[in-house]
Amino acid sequence: MRSRFSVLAVATAVLGLIMTPDTIEADEGMWLFNNPPRAQLKKYGFDPTDKWLDHVRLSSVRFNSGGSGSFVSPDGLVMTNHHVAAGDLDKVSTPEKNYLRDGFYAKTPDQEIKCKGLELNVLIGIKDVTADVEKAVPADAAGAEAFKLRTAKIAEIEKGAADPAKKIRADVVTLYAGGMYHLYTFKKYEDIRIVFAPEKQVAFFGGDPDNFEYPRYDLDVAFFRVYEDGKPIKCEHYLKWSPAGAKEDELVFVSGHPGRTNRANTVDELKYLRDTGYPYLLNRLNRLEVLLGSWGARSETNMQRAEEELFGIQNSRKARIGGLAGLMDPKLMGRKVRDEERLKEFISAGGSDAALAAAGKAFAAIAQAEKVRADLIKDMTVLENGGGFNSHSFSIARTLLRAAEELHKPGGARLREFADARLPSLKFQLFSDEPIYEDLETLKLADGLQFLAVTLGPDSDLVKKVLAGKSPRERAYELISGTKVRDPKVREHVWKAIEAAAKEGKPFEIAALNDPMIEVAALVDPASRALRKRFENEVDEPKRQAYSALAKAKFAMDGDKVYPDATFTLRLAFGPIKGYKEDGKDVPAFTTIEGLYKRSADQGNKGPFELPKRWVERKDKIDLKTPFNFVCTADIIGGNSGSPVVNKDAEVVGLIFDGNIQSLVLDFIYDQDTARAVSVDSRAIVEALRKVYDAPALADELTGQK
Amino acid sequence: MRSRFSVLAVATAVLGLIMTPDTIEADEGMWLFNNPPRAQLKKYGFDPTDKWLDHVRLSSVRFNSGGSGSFVSPDGLVMTNHHVAAGDLDKVSTPEKNYLRDGFYAKTPDQEIKCKGLELNVLIGIKDVTADVEKAVPADAAGAEAFKLRTAKIAEIEKGAADPAKKIRADVVTLYAGGMYHLYTFKKYEDIRIVFAPEKQVAFFGGDPDNFEYPRYDLDVAFFRVYEDGKPIKCEHYLKWSPAGAKEDELVFVSGHPGRTNRANTVDELKYLRDTGYPYLLNRLNRLEVLLGSWGARSETNMQRAEEELFGIQNSRKARIGGLAGLMDPKLMGRKVRDEERLKEFISAGGSDAALAAAGKAFAAIAQAEKVRADLIKDMTVLENGGGFNSHSFSIARTLLRAAEELHKPGGARLREFADARLPSLKFQLFSDEPIYEDLETLKLADGLQFLAVTLGPDSDLVKKVLAGKSPRERAYELISGTKVRDPKVREHVWKAIEAAAKEGKPFEIAALNDPMIEVAALVDPASRALRKRFENEVDEPKRQAYSALAKAKFAMDGDKVYPDATFTLRLAFGPIKGYKEDGKDVPAFTTIEGLYKRSADQGNKGPFELPKRWVERKDKIDLKTPFNFVCTADIIGGNSGSPVVNKDAEVVGLIFDGNIQSLVLDFIYDQDTARAVSVDSRAIVEALRKVYDAPALADELTGQK
Repeated sequence: MRSRFSVLAVATAVLGLIMTPDTIEADEGMWLFNNPPRAQLKKYGFDPTDKWLDHVRLSSVRFNSGGSGSFVSPDGLVMTNHHVAAGDLDKVSTPEKNYLRDGFYAKTPDQEIKCKGLELNVLIGIKDVTADVEKAVPADAAGAEAFKLRTAKIAEIEKGAADPAKKIRADVVTLYAGGMYHLYTFKKYEDIRIVFAPEKQVAFFGGDPDNFEYPRYDLDVAFFRVYEDGKPIKCEHYLKWSPAGAKEDELVFVSGHPGRTNRANTVDELKYLRDTGYPYLLNRLNRLEVLLGSWGARSETNMQRAEEELFGIQNSRKARIGGLAGLMDPKLMGRKVRDEERLKEFISAGGSDAALAAAGKAFAAIAQAEKVRADLIKDMTVLENGGGFNSHSFSIARTLLRAAEELHKPGGARLREFADARLPSLKFQLFSDEPIYEDLETLKLADGLQFLAVTLGPDSDLVKKVLAGKSPRERAYELISGTKVRDPKVREHVWKAIEAAAKEGKPFEIAALNDPMIEVAALVDPASRALRKRFENEVDEPKRQAYSALAKAKFAMDGDKVYPDATFTLRLAFGPIKGYKEDGKDVPAFTTIEGLYKRSADQGNKGPFELPKRWVERKDKIDLKTPFNFVCTADIIGGNSGSPVVNKDAEVVGLIFDGNIQSLVLDFIYDQDTARAVSVDSRAIVEALRKVYDAPALADELTGQK
Repeated sequence: MRSRFSVLAVATAVLGLIMTPDTIEADEGMWLFNNPPRAQLKKYGFDPTDKWLDHVRLSSVRFNSGGSGSFVSPDGLVMTNHHVAAGDLDKVSTPEKNYLRDGFYAKTPDQEIKCKGLELNVLIGIKDVTADVEKAVPADAAGAEAFKLRTAKIAEIEKGAADPAKKIRADVVTLYAGGMYHLYTFKKYEDIRIVFAPEKQVAFFGGDPDNFEYPRYDLDVAFFRVYEDGKPIKCEHYLKWSPAGAKEDELVFVSGHPGRTNRANTVDELKYLRDTGYPYLLNRLNRLEVLLGSWGARSETNMQRAEEELFGIQNSRKARIGGLAGLMDPKLMGRKVRDEERLKEFISAGGSDAALAAAGKAFAAIAQAEKVRADLIKDMTVLENGGGFNSHSFSIARTLLRAAEELHKPGGARLREFADARLPSLKFQLFSDEPIYEDLETLKLADGLQFLAVTLGPDSDLVKKVLAGKSPRERAYELISGTKVRDPKVREHVWKAIEAAAKEGKPFEIAALNDPMIEVAALVDPASRALRKRFENEVDEPKRQAYSALAKAKFAMDGDKVYPDATFTLRLAFGPIKGYKEDGKDVPAFTTIEGLYKRSADQGNKGPFELPKRWVERKDKIDLKTPFNFVCTADIIGGNSGSPVVNKDAEVVGLIFDGNIQSLVLDFIYDQDTARAVSVDSRAIVEALRKVYDAPALADELTGQK
């Protein structure tokens, strides 16, 4: 599932960097399991033993589809979120059985359904290989040479540690942007079966209106079982269920896989995002939300066609609004400024040290890159990012156009999306036969062309050529109804011709197809490619170098006294269960199942607030006082979805599934006052399994009564 | 009702000017009844007699609340739209009886409900007083002196013609931006009673999703009865009901009161609107729509609080999108360019004529003014227009602040909204006790403050002072919860103190109130006033002069061979009933009642597509083939809502209630290809009265069977 808290898109691709301990907050951090926050935890009178850490780590699971999970029974039962499982539920659904919408329960093992293409990883070993990696690179090696030598060494280490026969995967993880290299070995599991999922209506109760909000009432849970050799595995390590659940102010831990954070961003980059990047993007998201929302409101058919894209836009919009609100908070920005001053002082105290001198120049280089970025963002958005031609038809046409020009070149000389390693996923997308609707395409393209015209000026030569004397709407209709690229057979046919030409070392003469959409793509491609090149040369590359220099300076300053930026590898976060204040009102830490019924009734049981039939019928049987969702201060981000929440005894008390709107600034900076991780309470899961879903066997398995 | 087709807000306040006949389209024009489009009507083989024109004019009615109507029975029955009647229905509703939502029917005259404050006007006389007005102003009079003399003369003429005892009102109407002055005398009616209105669900079936769209299925009709001396009036002139209704391609006429058009805009001003003004405004409307829409989706209470404002925003958004689409159409803009070239040629051929020389300079002056406007629009929007402080609380606080500073000055020296003549309506608004919701205020202000910060820069001094070290949300909460101005009693108390100080010739020391919102208003007021002054001096005033010079040149060129821009006075438009093409598909001219049921069923009978109970129950009784709505090419604009559509025999065949989305460019230019006026078919009105509303007496009265 490409939305919600498993996959928050992030604004910029910056290397993982480090925090400065001066301004670190009490409950801050996504800590490495081999460098846990012992100092921070003293405050809570808790010092995790190695055994505790190993047990929690070996009970934690990474979903290769993006998300986290944990073993919760000795028989290979894995708990995660409904929204992490969504893609898998969808893949095994049939026209008759919609498991994603209606839920699923396998009463007996033989009813469990095998997933398609799902892989789970368990982190079984961590080894510091920094010295090995560094030894391979002579101090005087030039950039490209150093990169080559380092990459080769890493590949060698990974190959030596991996064991395909035993399903052992090995990755060298770059931490602190190259300050450290750790070899992570994983046990891979590939036979994963679905055990249980509730209805989407209760898993994502409140829909977009309640997304990122709190108080909340979502049963966002799903269970899988891991098989090997056709049998459920026997787990040495799994998390036991807490008999009592957790209480307000109780310290809890989150073990999961935060995807990416950008906490090393300089103040100049944050100001670019605050003053230009986010506001510009929000304008665009608002525009698309209104476009698709109002078109969807015209008919149920329209809404069915637009709703997935619309939900993605609403999700991004909420995320950006939350992020921007954080960037606008002078307290948070003030901490960023102080962090940066401390680093600058450290750098200037470093005198003639070459690495620190390079870091000293990095701030100005980033500031300059952000200036260019601000200059280019509008043109980049409409041209290279395709916002001015917003349609699947244009994307396909441009892919075919560029393939025709690129494929005959040697791999390294091509645009990066045409590199050999990326071709399979490019082709997978290109040949997908998911339906593309002509009416929706026309709507989006007409809006895109108007956006293009306003951005570049309706009187500019390029716009005039694109519109060819027509209004945006007329031209969009002409292009969408005229192009043949929406036919998957045409795409495959053209692709084969391109490949055949490439084999002879020639570009394919795509102009001969006379496809109007490909002609438009060809018309704008020179300008688009030139812009992209400029962006790479004047924004991406200088920033990469500057952030690398800053990372080295930071590592010289603090070493591993602080946690590294997120890398979609296993981390430990912590903090008490705690409400917060919003507009002067107390937002309580816990909700109850009673609150679910009340919220549904208050909203007339309609739309995203409609309860599944089963929940309506079983209301009398349920203990309405059961805690349902809760919030804690643990430092999480997209990728943490499905992470177990455990107490000091490493017992399950909850299941992370979201952050509140105030948590959306965690991409850049931790905030203890109001940012909160949102979890399903373990007691609600058991109550629902027993009273709503007639799944006592599964509840017994979780609570160890089997 | 301040939305839909009665009240399309217009982008700019420009004087009413004239069209050039070279590029005029066949069915174009909002013609004066004393200068009808005889030449254009030749094509249709129809030449309206004076009797025909007098009869239609004297059967037409203007609603002082904004909108049009007509007499449709000898007993003073007036037909208009449900949405024109909405304000009146609302005013007479009670907590028990919601006539706006549920409809109303007075079976007998004694059940008819008297309206509050509604005035209807019938245009009984037109006299050209141009010579009189011009004689009063010597050719060598300077601007201010000329204005004074002209205003005095007009007042004298109006006073001479008015007769309050006989309820005769007299207005001198400025046509062709001063090319002509006509004295209009009206018969005023002030005892207006409500006879019939359907449910809002069917009057505005399809709600915002179908607003400005076609095909359409709205029974947007209401009936009033005009009384004098406690009895229904006897009408000499009223429109008879057509027994057969109208057919496709039949020529029809619209007699109504188009509010304002800006067809004289220069190409430079249109490009400003196309490239800057509309896109900027649309960004803002999108932002507010998403803000209120997503907040409204959080709960039914929220939606009740936000929905009126939300609907107004959606309505404006659609209108702007339609207008921008038109401005983006090279064909329409090409006609504007040719029009302007013709005028420029006429002006340069004029040689040393002083008036034409002034007109020659007008184009550059307007271009310069539009440049300044583009420079100032963002700051104007957040400061003087209050977008950066988006809340009723701020508006009230600023009104009080400015009143304290302005009221003691002589009337002419005050900001114009504090002129003596405007004070009653300002006070009416200020003391209104309509509910203001703290949560909605906080939401809007937080968004406004963020908009302010992004516009002026979060690091600017003014923004820092406004935010006072808080985030926008925190600050908004602090201001909204801290201010006292939402209490109507506080407002009245402060106002009295201001008036008392003003009587002593002193400003009121409002700072002593220590109200945080008034303090914020005071903080930004110097910058806001300076900006406003600059806008008036460098945009409004130069444009007023330049357009006046251009208007004179145009009148010199074409005289009254063309129609003047709309002035909310009676006009005649015409054109055949005719479908159009959209995205290559034919949009038919007529819909039927069957289509209403089908559209409702297709949308699951939900939300704006839910039919009133009566319509569901009576379906079997209704002739489903009855034509319901239709479109024609007549040239209309906001203010035409409620206009009768009549055939060559001056019989009612329909009732204007909207324009399609393509018609939204009619503010600037007429378009015959796709712009359409949308009407209720007269046959649907009678069918509904007889079969759904059990109102045979009313149907008989309409069709002359009484």
